[in-house]
Amino acid sequence: MITHSPLQTDLYQLTMAAAYWHAGKAEQESVFHLFFRRLPFLGGYAIAAGLEPALEWMEAFRFRKEELEYLAGLRTKVDTPLFRRDFLNYLGELRLKLDIDAIPEGEAVFAHEPLLRVEGPILHAQLVETALLNILNFQTLVATKAARICGAAAGGPVIEFGYRRAQGPDGGLSASRAACIGGCKGTSNVLAGQRYGLPVLGTHAHSWVMSFDDESEAFDRYAEAMPDNSTLLVDTYDTLGGVDHAITTARLLRQRGHELNGIRLDSGDLAWLSQQARAKLDAAGFPEVKIVASNDLDEHIIESLRHQGARIDIWGVGTNLVTAADQPALGGVYKLGALRSEDGTWQPRIKLSEQMAKSSIPGRLQVRRFEENGLLMADAIYDLDRGIPDEQVEIVDPGDTSRSKLIPAGTAFHDVLQPVMRDGKRVTAPELLDMIRSRCKETVAKLHPGTTRLVNPHTFPAGLEQGLHDARELLLAEYRQKRGKVVP
Amino acid sequence: MITHSPLQTDLYQLTMAAAYWHAGKAEQESVFHLFFRRLPFLGGYAIAAGLEPALEWMEAFRFRKEELEYLAGLRTKVDTPLFRRDFLNYLGELRLKLDIDAIPEGEAVFAHEPLLRVEGPILHAQLVETALLNILNFQTLVATKAARICGAAAGGPVIEFGYRRAQGPDGGLSASRAACIGGCKGTSNVLAGQRYGLPVLGTHAHSWVMSFDDESEAFDRYAEAMPDNSTLLVDTYDTLGGVDHAITTARLLRQRGHELNGIRLDSGDLAWLSQQARAKLDAAGFPEVKIVASNDLDEHIIESLRHQGARIDIWGVGTNLVTAADQPALGGVYKLGALRSEDGTWQPRIKLSEQMAKSSIPGRLQVRRFEENGLLMADAIYDLDRGIPDEQVEIVDPGDTSRSKLIPAGTAFHDVLQPVMRDGKRVTAPELLDMIRSRCKETVAKLHPGTTRLVNPHTFPAGLEQGLHDARELLLAEYRQKRGKVVP
Repeated sequence: MITHSPLQTDLYQLTMAAAYWHAGKAEQESVFHLFFRRLPFLGGYAIAAGLEPALEWMEAFRFRKEELEYLAGLRTKVDTPLFRRDFLNYLGELRLKLDIDAIPEGEAVFAHEPLLRVEGPILHAQLVETALLNILNFQTLVATKAARICGAAAGGPVIEFGYRRAQGPDGGLSASRAACIGGCKGTSNVLAGQRYGLPVLGTHAHSWVMSFDDESEAFDRYAEAMPDNSTLLVDTYDTLGGVDHAITTARLLRQRGHELNGIRLDSGDLAWLSQQARAKLDAAGFPEVKIVASNDLDEHIIESLRHQGARIDIWGVGTNLVTAADQPALGGVYKLGALRSEDGTWQPRIKLSEQMAKSSIPGRLQVRRFEENGLLMADAIYDLDRGIPDEQVEIVDPGDTSRSKLIPAGTAFHDVLQPVMRDGKRVTAPELLDMIRSRCKETVAKLHPGTTRLVNPHTFPAGLEQGLHDARELLLAEYRQKRGKVVP
Repeated sequence: MITHSPLQTDLYQLTMAAAYWHAGKAEQESVFHLFFRRLPFLGGYAIAAGLEPALEWMEAFRFRKEELEYLAGLRTKVDTPLFRRDFLNYLGELRLKLDIDAIPEGEAVFAHEPLLRVEGPILHAQLVETALLNILNFQTLVATKAARICGAAAGGPVIEFGYRRAQGPDGGLSASRAACIGGCKGTSNVLAGQRYGLPVLGTHAHSWVMSFDDESEAFDRYAEAMPDNSTLLVDTYDTLGGVDHAITTARLLRQRGHELNGIRLDSGDLAWLSQQARAKLDAAGFPEVKIVASNDLDEHIIESLRHQGARIDIWGVGTNLVTAADQPALGGVYKLGALRSEDGTWQPRIKLSEQMAKSSIPGRLQVRRFEENGLLMADAIYDLDRGIPDEQVEIVDPGDTSRSKLIPAGTAFHDVLQPVMRDGKRVTAPELLDMIRSRCKETVAKLHPGTTRLVNPHTFPAGLEQGLHDARELLLAEYRQKRGKVVP
C-alpha cells in the first residue's frame, strides 16, 4: 500500500496543468463543484462521507523529488519529454491555494448538490480533482449503503465483516470507516480499529472447528482461551447440533464464572434456524446469549428476515456493504461552475454534451436546507453571487424542470456547505468519528419515512432556486445558439 | 493510505491465534487452499492475479511495537484484556514459516482450483488468511474483467481510466495493476505508472474547453502546450462541431511539424459519431488521427459497438472495469484441507454446512492441466498425497457430480501450482508485469472460443481427479453419519 502522493491522479490533470501554465492561465480563479447526478441504490438519500481523508490528502499535497523525476522521464509517442523542465520546477514549488466549502460528513445529500465547492487557481483545482472524486465517491457510497442496512436492522447492531472481499487493502480500510459513519457498531478489520478507533469484533472461523476431531472439543478449547469473548460459529457440520454443543460449552463457562457471548449462524435458513436456536438457548437458561447472523446479507435480506420473525440480535454484513454490491460506484463528477474575470466578477460556465443529463450547473453554489416540524422539508441549490430570496423560495427539479415547489417565507433553514479550507489551510479541526456517526443518525431521523424506505422512495425536493434555474436555462440557450454557428 | 501491517486482518484471526496458542496447537502443521466456487461475470474463465503484492505483504509481516500496544489495549465486554501479554510477546517474536505454492499470475484459473496452497503452522496460516483473500480476490476479479474487455476489443487498445470511481485510493492502484495484467495497454493513474512502470495515458477534460470562451481557442492552446501529445475531447458543446474544430487545430499542428494524436468522444451515440468523425478526419487528410471513445463502456457495449461498425481505435474504460461493476467481489475463500498427524501423515479435513455448495475439498491439492492441439483440454484437481494416475485420468465436476470426463493416457500436461515461498522466504524473483501480461494473453489464446465468449460460455472441464472425488464423497458420508450422533 501507499502513502499520500500527488501522483494519485489521472495523467490528464497534469497535462492540463502544463497547458494552463503554458497558456498563462495557471492562476485563473475558478470554482468547481463535486456532485453526483443520481442517488445510489435507487434510494431516497445519500450520506456524505470522505471529507476528512480528502483534507488529509490535500494537506500532504506536495511534489517531491522522486515524483518530479518520474514525471521528467515520461515521453510522448515521438519520444520528446512530455513535460518541460521549467514546468516541473514550477510543480516542485507549488503549494495549494484553495478555498473549500463542504457538506459535513454524516449529513444527508441529494442529487446535484455540491458535496464540495473548490475555489482557487484553476491549475490547483484541477490537480486535486481525481483524488477528491476517488475518496468522496467511495466513502459516500459506503456510508449510504451502511445507513440503509442499519435502517433495515432497525436498531439491531450491524458489524462490518467485509475486509476479505473488499476492493484492495485500502478499499477495505475506507469502507470500514464509511460503514461506521453510516451506523455500523464496529468492524472485523483490525487495522481500521487501530487507525480510526473503531470497535473491533469477531467470532471464529470454520477452520477452528475443523482443526479438532470434535466440535464440542473445539468450542470448549475456544472458550477456555477466550472466556469473556466467545461467540461460537455453529454451522460447520450441522447447525442445530452445533447449537447444542455451544450450550454445553456455555454451561461449562458459567460453572467457571463466565458467560458465553453468542453463537453465529453463517448458512442455511437464517429465519428458521435463528428461531430454533433461540428456543434452545432460552430453554437451556441462556436468554442473554446473542445470535449473530452472517452470509451475504444486505438491507433487503435483513428487512425480509425481520419480517419473518427471525431471532437475530447482531447482523454481520460483509461483501454487499463494503463493495456496495448493487451499485459499486457513485457517479460523482467535478465540474467547472464559474471563472473570475479581470473585473473580479464571476462568469458562470456550463457544459452541454450530447446527453442533456450530463449538462452542468453554472455558478458558485451553496445549498439551503429548510426544515419544518423537525423534518427536512426541501433543499434549494443557489448561486452565491445571485443570492436567494428572503421571502418565499421556489425550487425547480434540475432533472425534470416541470416539477417545482414553493417554500413558504419564514421556514427555518440553514446553509449546508461549511468552510473547511482557506488558502490551502484547514480551518476546522478533524471531527471524531463518533460525532459524524451521530450526525448521520440525526439526519436520517429527520427524513420522512417515505424518503428512507428501501424501495421506490419518495423523491426529496432538492432543486435549483428559481433564479439559478432561469440563469441556467438562459445559458443553455446561449450555448445552443453558439452551436448553430459552428463552421466546418 | 497505509503501509503493510499485520493488522490488515479480521479480529477473529487474532483471537483464533490466541486460542491455538493457548490450546498448544500453534505449531500444528496444516494446509489451506484459497479458491473460489463460481467464475465471475457468468464467464468461462478467470485470470489469476495479485500474487506479487500478496508475497510482498507476507515478506513484510511482523508485529511491531505500536501494533502490539494497540492489541494490548483491546478489552472484552467485561473489561478484561482481550489478549494475554505472554501471547502478545509471542506475536512480537513471530516470523512466518509458511510454504506456498501458487498459480502464476496471468494464468487461467477455474472454479474450485486452488490459487494458493498454504502449508505450515496453523497459527501462521490463519494470520495471513484475510490479507491473502483481500489481495487475490480483487486483483483476480479485475484481471478477469480486463481480459474480457480486451477480448471484446479484439486487439484494439484498451486504456484503464477508472481511478476517480475506484473503491478508495488503493482500490484504484490495485485495479490499474490487475487491468494491465488482463491486457490493458495503459492507465490514466499516474501513481500506478510510477509504481508499476505501466504506460500512462490521457487526454483532457471538459473543464479545459470550458475555461476558454471558444472551443477552437481551447484546442489550439492545448496543442501548443502539448504538440506531440494532444488528444482533443470534442463533445463539450456539440460533438461533430468539436471534430471540425479539432481538424482546424490538427492543420495548425501539421504546419508546425507535429501531428494530432487523436480525438475523444465521451457521450452520445458512439457508433454513429465515430463513423461521422472518421469520415471528417479522413476527408481532411488525417487518417492517422485516432478516435478514442469513453463513457461507461464494458465488454458487452464494446462488442456491440464493434458489431455496429463503430470506427473506434482506442477504448477508454473506467468504472465498469476497476469496480468490476456487474460483480464487484470474487467470492474467494480459504479453507483448511488437511492437518498433519503425529505420525507425519496428512489427515484430510472437510466442512459441510447447511448448503452443500459451501462444502470444501479435502487434501493437499495440485492442479494438472492437460493440453491438446495447442488448446487447454481439461484440468484435474488432485491430492498430492493420493497422487494422480499415469494412465488415463477421470475427472468429476465438483458442482455437479453426474458430469465426468476421461482424459486419455499420453495427453500432454503440466502441474499449474508452482513453489513461491518456502519457510517464509520467497523462492522466486518478482515477475515483470509485461511477462505476466504476456502469460495472460497466451493463456487466453489457448482457450477454446466457446470458453472465452461473453455470454453462456462453454464450461471448461476442471474437475476432481476420480480418486480425490471418491475420497471426498467418503468423508462427506462419514461426517453426515457423525451428525446423526449429535445429542442435545
